[in-house]
Amino acid sequence: MNFELLILGSNSAVPYKGRFPSAQALTLRNSSYLIDCGEGTQIRLAEEQVKRNRFKAVFISHLHGDHVFGLPGLLTSFSLAGRKDPLFIFGPQGIREMIETAIRLSGSFLSYPVEFQEIITNKSVKVYESETIKVFAFPLQHRIPTYGYKFVEKEKARHIVPEKLELYNIPFTQIPDLRMGADGISVDGDVIPNREVTRDPHPVRSYAYCSDTIYDESLISHIAGVDLLYHEATFMHDLAEKARDRMHTTSCEAAMIAKKAKVQKLIIGHFSSRYDNLEPLLHEARSVFSNTELAIEGTRFEI
Amino acid sequence: MNFELLILGSNSAVPYKGRFPSAQALTLRNSSYLIDCGEGTQIRLAEEQVKRNRFKAVFISHLHGDHVFGLPGLLTSFSLAGRKDPLFIFGPQGIREMIETAIRLSGSFLSYPVEFQEIITNKSVKVYESETIKVFAFPLQHRIPTYGYKFVEKEKARHIVPEKLELYNIPFTQIPDLRMGADGISVDGDVIPNREVTRDPHPVRSYAYCSDTIYDESLISHIAGVDLLYHEATFMHDLAEKARDRMHTTSCEAAMIAKKAKVQKLIIGHFSSRYDNLEPLLHEARSVFSNTELAIEGTRFEI
Repeated sequence: MNFELLILGSNSAVPYKGRFPSAQALTLRNSSYLIDCGEGTQIRLAEEQVKRNRFKAVFISHLHGDHVFGLPGLLTSFSLAGRKDPLFIFGPQGIREMIETAIRLSGSFLSYPVEFQEIITNKSVKVYESETIKVFAFPLQHRIPTYGYKFVEKEKARHIVPEKLELYNIPFTQIPDLRMGADGISVDGDVIPNREVTRDPHPVRSYAYCSDTIYDESLISHIAGVDLLYHEATFMHDLAEKARDRMHTTSCEAAMIAKKAKVQKLIIGHFSSRYDNLEPLLHEARSVFSNTELAIEGTRFEI
Repeated sequence: MNFELLILGSNSAVPYKGRFPSAQALTLRNSSYLIDCGEGTQIRLAEEQVKRNRFKAVFISHLHGDHVFGLPGLLTSFSLAGRKDPLFIFGPQGIREMIETAIRLSGSFLSYPVEFQEIITNKSVKVYESETIKVFAFPLQHRIPTYGYKFVEKEKARHIVPEKLELYNIPFTQIPDLRMGADGISVDGDVIPNREVTRDPHPVRSYAYCSDTIYDESLISHIAGVDLLYHEATFMHDLAEKARDRMHTTSCEAAMIAKKAKVQKLIIGHFSSRYDNLEPLLHEARSVFSNTELAIEGTRFEI
């Protein structure tokens, strides 16, 4: 079952030489989730030929323009394409007013319902759940209210071992319960422990998104052990003071978070426009946490 | 003295295969004016290497997203670049609320003053004047309040003929008055008619922007005789009914307006995404008004 992250943009603030502001598309099975929506996101979605009608929800980290100014245009384009399914939008307080004001004054009417959920929390809370995924929001430390998001596959059903059902004479009608962990009952009434007739499912996979934030070890508990972590790395570590002043993180610090949180893989992004060449940021991060990659527009990461 | 129009984008509604929504940069001497500001305009300005600090004013035709959703991001980027000069923004009622809401909720503070002027008029009115240019707004007929703009060079000073000053013995101190049309007075007290010592200046040049609008002959009086006219041509004429329903114009109709208004040159744009190939729209317009060009991203028109 595919679980894929597509980088749509990961430059900080101003668009720069083909680098777009923050936006990512996360796809699990046939459902997609948009994470941040900087200006030009709908252009990037078209370029990457992402299926627009698969988007179930949008998760906005904070209301700085480079993370949200693409949203009014995206919503009206969804409408022009005739979308009917509801869209859920998560973000800090104010997102509803920002988007509804733009839509109203532009004289637009959306062809589908939008359900806003404004997040206020100082701990990790579940904000969204579908048949396949759970999403948690947790606070980041930035200049305005900002949230990270963790996307966790839902626990999967156990695998049935068909030969064992036959061996123990367990009716097929019990399969749904067996997949959920119930013991089997043979036609003779014997109780057969679940583990005798099933195998463990594949482990659940998880992805965490942390942008923008100052270096903050308190977020480690919220993202510990994820398979894939995106963490902002606006500057290199020689500018650690500037990073702290602006409440951003350095490449080295992002890698330290990844290491301490014992994640499988790290992606760094939200690069300052001062960096033409991003390789030094990658090199710096890898010196601390080797399994690191750059968030380059168009890159897809299988989780 | 250069007077140049640069097409930044001219697709209708949704961005499409390298075609961006409406935006144009008009430059006269060292001053630039932005006309409409669809999503991605700041990206296009960067691609075209337009000098951002030359922009004096922004003229928004109407508040549909494909004409204005790029403005919040542009304004904050100007600020990040340290702009100090005031910026004038003209547009229909609501533009101030739309932009100020986005700026406020994004937690941004602009480094320069913005002066909004919301336009309400049913005739042509002068809305802006500088040392070199006058700008008039006039109503267009669209689904929401919409204005066209006409940019007219200010009357220029007359050219001095130096040999004649010498011939008639007119002191150089009179040059500023002579350039403004005053008669000369020789050192002997003789009055020398202005036309004896000056030549006519180059004629003033003008540009008019009409997007979006239904076919409407009442706008002809506002744009009559301009050197360059941009008129929307969303559809070809086989879709004239659809154009009328959506309050847009066909390629053929745009050319009829140009012909009746006796303009020098026509540019058509605001193309529907249904057209992959724009040549048929050009061909159709040229069959009515031969001096027509397409508004293609990156094209520059000398006025």
